[in-house]
Amino acid sequence: MHPRFLAGVAAVALLAGGSALADPLPSWNDTGPKQSIIAFVESVTDPTSEAYVPEEDRIATFDNDGTLWTEQPVYFQGLYALDVLQEKAKVDPDILTTDALKAGAKGDVGGILATGMDGLLEVINVSHSGLTVEEFQADALDWLTNYTHPTTKKPYVDMVYQPMLELLSYLRDEGFTTYIVSGGGIDFIRAFSEDAYGIPPWQVVGTEGNTAFEVVDGLPMLTKNGGVTFIDDKEGKPVGIARHIGRKPIFAAGNSDGDFAMLQYTTSGAGPSYGLLVHHTDAAREFAYDREGHIGTLNRGLDEGPGLGWTIVDMAQDWAKVFPGE
Amino acid sequence: MHPRFLAGVAAVALLAGGSALADPLPSWNDTGPKQSIIAFVESVTDPTSEAYVPEEDRIATFDNDGTLWTEQPVYFQGLYALDVLQEKAKVDPDILTTDALKAGAKGDVGGILATGMDGLLEVINVSHSGLTVEEFQADALDWLTNYTHPTTKKPYVDMVYQPMLELLSYLRDEGFTTYIVSGGGIDFIRAFSEDAYGIPPWQVVGTEGNTAFEVVDGLPMLTKNGGVTFIDDKEGKPVGIARHIGRKPIFAAGNSDGDFAMLQYTTSGAGPSYGLLVHHTDAAREFAYDREGHIGTLNRGLDEGPGLGWTIVDMAQDWAKVFPGE
Ligand SMILES: [Ca+2]
Ligand SMILES: [Ca+2]
Repeated sequence: MHPRFLAGVAAVALLAGGSALADPLPSWNDTGPKQSIIAFVESVTDPTSEAYVPEEDRIATFDNDGTLWTEQPVYFQGLYALDVLQEKAKVDPDILTTDALKAGAKGDVGGILATGMDGLLEVINVSHSGLTVEEFQADALDWLTNYTHPTTKKPYVDMVYQPMLELLSYLRDEGFTTYIVSGGGIDFIRAFSEDAYGIPPWQVVGTEGNTAFEVVDGLPMLTKNGGVTFIDDKEGKPVGIARHIGRKPIFAAGNSDGDFAMLQYTTSGAGPSYGLLVHHTDAAREFAYDREGHIGTLNRGLDEGPGLGWTIVDMAQDWAKVFPGE
Repeated sequence: MHPRFLAGVAAVALLAGGSALADPLPSWNDTGPKQSIIAFVESVTDPTSEAYVPEEDRIATFDNDGTLWTEQPVYFQGLYALDVLQEKAKVDPDILTTDALKAGAKGDVGGILATGMDGLLEVINVSHSGLTVEEFQADALDWLTNYTHPTTKKPYVDMVYQPMLELLSYLRDEGFTTYIVSGGGIDFIRAFSEDAYGIPPWQVVGTEGNTAFEVVDGLPMLTKNGGVTFIDDKEGKPVGIARHIGRKPIFAAGNSDGDFAMLQYTTSGAGPSYGLLVHHTDAAREFAYDREGHIGTLNRGLDEGPGLGWTIVDMAQDWAKVFPGE
């Protein structure tokens, strides 16, 4: 067939809709979740549909750890904090004032987790204080880019999920604004979210620490002072959405019961909405975990989610790829 | 002259730049502030200029009370809180547990201010709690639209400054994102900011109260519970910017020493930046006040601002109009 004719066929197909030519979610298998995501997006963006939602209300919120990137063997921010703590303890061992900090300085993740969430916060506090926000973000980005994951050996920044990158792009192409709403630290996520996800800092909601404005030698700066002022997890997620966005999302994605309230809030009320939970079922390509364990526990979501109309993504079955470049 | 020829002339003028045809700031007199604002905007938006700033960094932050609308005889949110408190006290006088609340229930603004900022916060706390964010905003918008200012007799929503509306539009037309960064309550400002200023809720930064996510009779809701969790004033303004925006503005406007830190932060560092202070000099058309008084005190800004390169807008001299429709 003459090439010019082929080009003509392609142009006609594009004009006719072109969805066969441009699959917005190529790393998703053609199973229920992909089909229902596309059906939802097509209905809320179709001005003739009863479910039509104007662009300014197309707000989509995404959990980060375990939803946009891997969270095993422990949150990457926790691993980063451990490395920083160990460096700091070499210089000044007197900072190790608690059991959690002593465990951290030995790289003993189990020992920290045994002290509970408070222990993890102590480690993060001591590691993430006494420097400016800019310095912290430069250091975190350097670590995420140059250190590698213990099992996959990939740089941490490459442990993002290709299907979710496609979903973020697809939603933005369809007039959605995509936000991260994470229990992780807001400054930490902002260090890489624009490069990794195309999400600028003002669309990142997260756990917040004490930040002070100081003028040092005539130079204004923002300094991380330690101490947590807001925990953006569980019931805190809708509160974080209220503080930062001020409007209810119509799409929310998570992977654990820490996201239950966010999905419940998003999918409540009369208008169209979509709730998505990533279920980690893929020990071969990533990790398999749900009801038990130290991170990303998913019970209520599995029990009540389907009855609430939420989509449970079975990573092994519904994703053709997990990480980019595979 | 033939109309078609005239249209041709206009088209050529538009192609040649068109600034003579379309004044972006018609309610500003052709004095120093207007000239320097336009010069700044033209330089940071000119790709051939050394001062060029890409769109994603064109962040402009505006104080609200006294900068975008009137703040006399007292912050409008305070007047609203007084009205709500008086209604509530009629139903249940036992809520009047402090001197500030007792003064408030009598409409005695001086009595509240005598108890200091804490007293004002008590009045706002009691008035602005025990209801959902949605209910609060609907009630506040109703009040702002239907109640009138004691001296001008205009509805409060009409007490916005026409020159500042033009400045907001001009900056947005030139690729800036415009934020409010106010000591006022974030939920209160969001009730009217989109209609009044074209600023959506996610571009409003303000003082934050306790907000809880609750599921009542199966219905998820966000409830205002009283108590302040973040004060977005003075050194809190750069912190609010860090939390909500995560990037340093290049343009900041305020009217009091509560904005000093925000302007200091914005105009620090090497890149191009613009700091603006509205000086209330116009007792005839609005109010005249600066160094003394209970609200909008401006001392450091007048003393140090010019030396820091900030523009002081003399309302009487630099604004052709104050309010819309005049
Ligand atoms: Ca998660
Ligand atoms: Ca002000």
